[in-house]
Amino acid sequence: MQAGFIGLGKMGFNMALQLLEHGHELVVFDLTEQAVSRMEEAGAIPADSVADLASRLSSPRVIWLMVPAGDAVDATIRDLLTQLQEGDIVVDGGNSRYQDSRRRAVELAGVGIRFLDVGTSGGLEGARHGACTMVGGEKDAYLCVEPLLKDLCVPGGYGYMGSSGAGHYAKMVHNGIEYGMMQAIGEGFELMQAGEFGFDMEEVSRVWANGSVIRSWLMDLAHQAFQKDGSLGYLEGTIADSGEGRWTVEAALERDVSVPVIASALFRRYRSRSDNNFSDRVVAALRHEFGGHGFHPPQ
Amino acid sequence: MQAGFIGLGKMGFNMALQLLEHGHELVVFDLTEQAVSRMEEAGAIPADSVADLASRLSSPRVIWLMVPAGDAVDATIRDLLTQLQEGDIVVDGGNSRYQDSRRRAVELAGVGIRFLDVGTSGGLEGARHGACTMVGGEKDAYLCVEPLLKDLCVPGGYGYMGSSGAGHYAKMVHNGIEYGMMQAIGEGFELMQAGEFGFDMEEVSRVWANGSVIRSWLMDLAHQAFQKDGSLGYLEGTIADSGEGRWTVEAALERDVSVPVIASALFRRYRSRSDNNFSDRVVAALRHEFGGHGFHPPQ
Repeated sequence: MQAGFIGLGKMGFNMALQLLEHGHELVVFDLTEQAVSRMEEAGAIPADSVADLASRLSSPRVIWLMVPAGDAVDATIRDLLTQLQEGDIVVDGGNSRYQDSRRRAVELAGVGIRFLDVGTSGGLEGARHGACTMVGGEKDAYLCVEPLLKDLCVPGGYGYMGSSGAGHYAKMVHNGIEYGMMQAIGEGFELMQAGEFGFDMEEVSRVWANGSVIRSWLMDLAHQAFQKDGSLGYLEGTIADSGEGRWTVEAALERDVSVPVIASALFRRYRSRSDNNFSDRVVAALRHEFGGHGFHPPQ
Repeated sequence: MQAGFIGLGKMGFNMALQLLEHGHELVVFDLTEQAVSRMEEAGAIPADSVADLASRLSSPRVIWLMVPAGDAVDATIRDLLTQLQEGDIVVDGGNSRYQDSRRRAVELAGVGIRFLDVGTSGGLEGARHGACTMVGGEKDAYLCVEPLLKDLCVPGGYGYMGSSGAGHYAKMVHNGIEYGMMQAIGEGFELMQAGEFGFDMEEVSRVWANGSVIRSWLMDLAHQAFQKDGSLGYLEGTIADSGEGRWTVEAALERDVSVPVIASALFRRYRSRSDNNFSDRVVAALRHEFGGHGFHPPQ
């Protein structure tokens, strides 16, 4: 089918390639001209602005956004609104906050435009060779874009989650689970390293990735990393977060749901970024004050 | 190859079947006569005692134990010792504590018998159709039993972990990771249920199991469970533990390794078994004492 595709970053570029390979007609735009040219070489129709992209599509238009969460989504939708007509469909495939998606759906519905929030998972490999998408919004609009979803995802890897916001809510919780799983895997490998057995992490991760109860894509990725270096000496143990774990814990707080493992995994990420942090200094100071216990002076 | 197989419970029975199907000659024994008869029908040679089993094997014997961890392993080894000869190999494929395996290896080495500790993972399905095994002990003994490991496991699903105890240590940590992953998944689905979207858990788990970052055997199993009942109303949220998670946290304490997620998942299991527990009563009482906050009297 015909579709517009805005945002050709790492994920978007791979997804657009995949759609082209499946025979879809794509009109593409990105702020980086080079990405648009490369996509043109791959068979897409280039546009030189968001408005230009919209004007090159026939109604009812389907426009897939793969831009950074937050203001960029609102700005792109604003630009689109100058061109869109009733019945057109805007799809946000990025990692937007589900409350934002709900708001956007209401705003766009006010001018007759349909909005789908699509949580996309599977990493760069998935974007290129088969991802997983969770879709929220009107069921009719979902059915309109299903040909794209089918070709973007592995078999069984897409589904209608519910009303507006449900797709990004499901993606948010997915990422919360991911944080917990990753932290459990990290702790386990540290226990293996701390053992007296001198484990070969490449070997351990290979065995765990095949036939075990904890076999998973994350374990496959651990094996891939340990093949490069069993001690992971090429990087520092400092873990960023892109917001979804934090939103998951906020959602838990709003709903009185106990999420000790997901919250702990999130807090562990914060802590990984702060050596010699204030809470540890407070505890060391208290030990000194009450018991005269020694402390390490600043290096 | 020829081998003895002792312990035809749920795991052992399936594993023995798998070995028979791959053409191995098995002499089998179990305290339950019925299990031995069923295995005889499947082509195994029945034995009527541990000693009888040992006498039916030619040296150097290989005897695989699949009996409950703890005293049963020691008792079986004691019975075997009346028949075994120097060079024979005893394999413990159960969930033994790694310190016990190390002790048994030393004791058996004292009389010239080789001992392998084999952590087995993959559940009943794995036992029947391809498991994952982590092996500790002498490398030579490992090579002797490799034909069995190869046929018991999925491709890539077995490996030599290191000296005696390493196999069961790796299995222990594997289970600790499993606890953390399972708890993260549980928390995530509770957040989905608590959402205002009325998610269909069967649909959510199907999508997450295909192409997502959290795709895993555990997510496949979640989907399998939700296919039976999206609310899991057929069971209670009471979680048992068989010791490996607890040993993992003990190992962390011995090694000063921080395992917040694994420990939290373990403690969550304890708590799942105690409604109206004492710590919650203490906290509710303190709130009442300092602030006059109300409390719920016993039902």
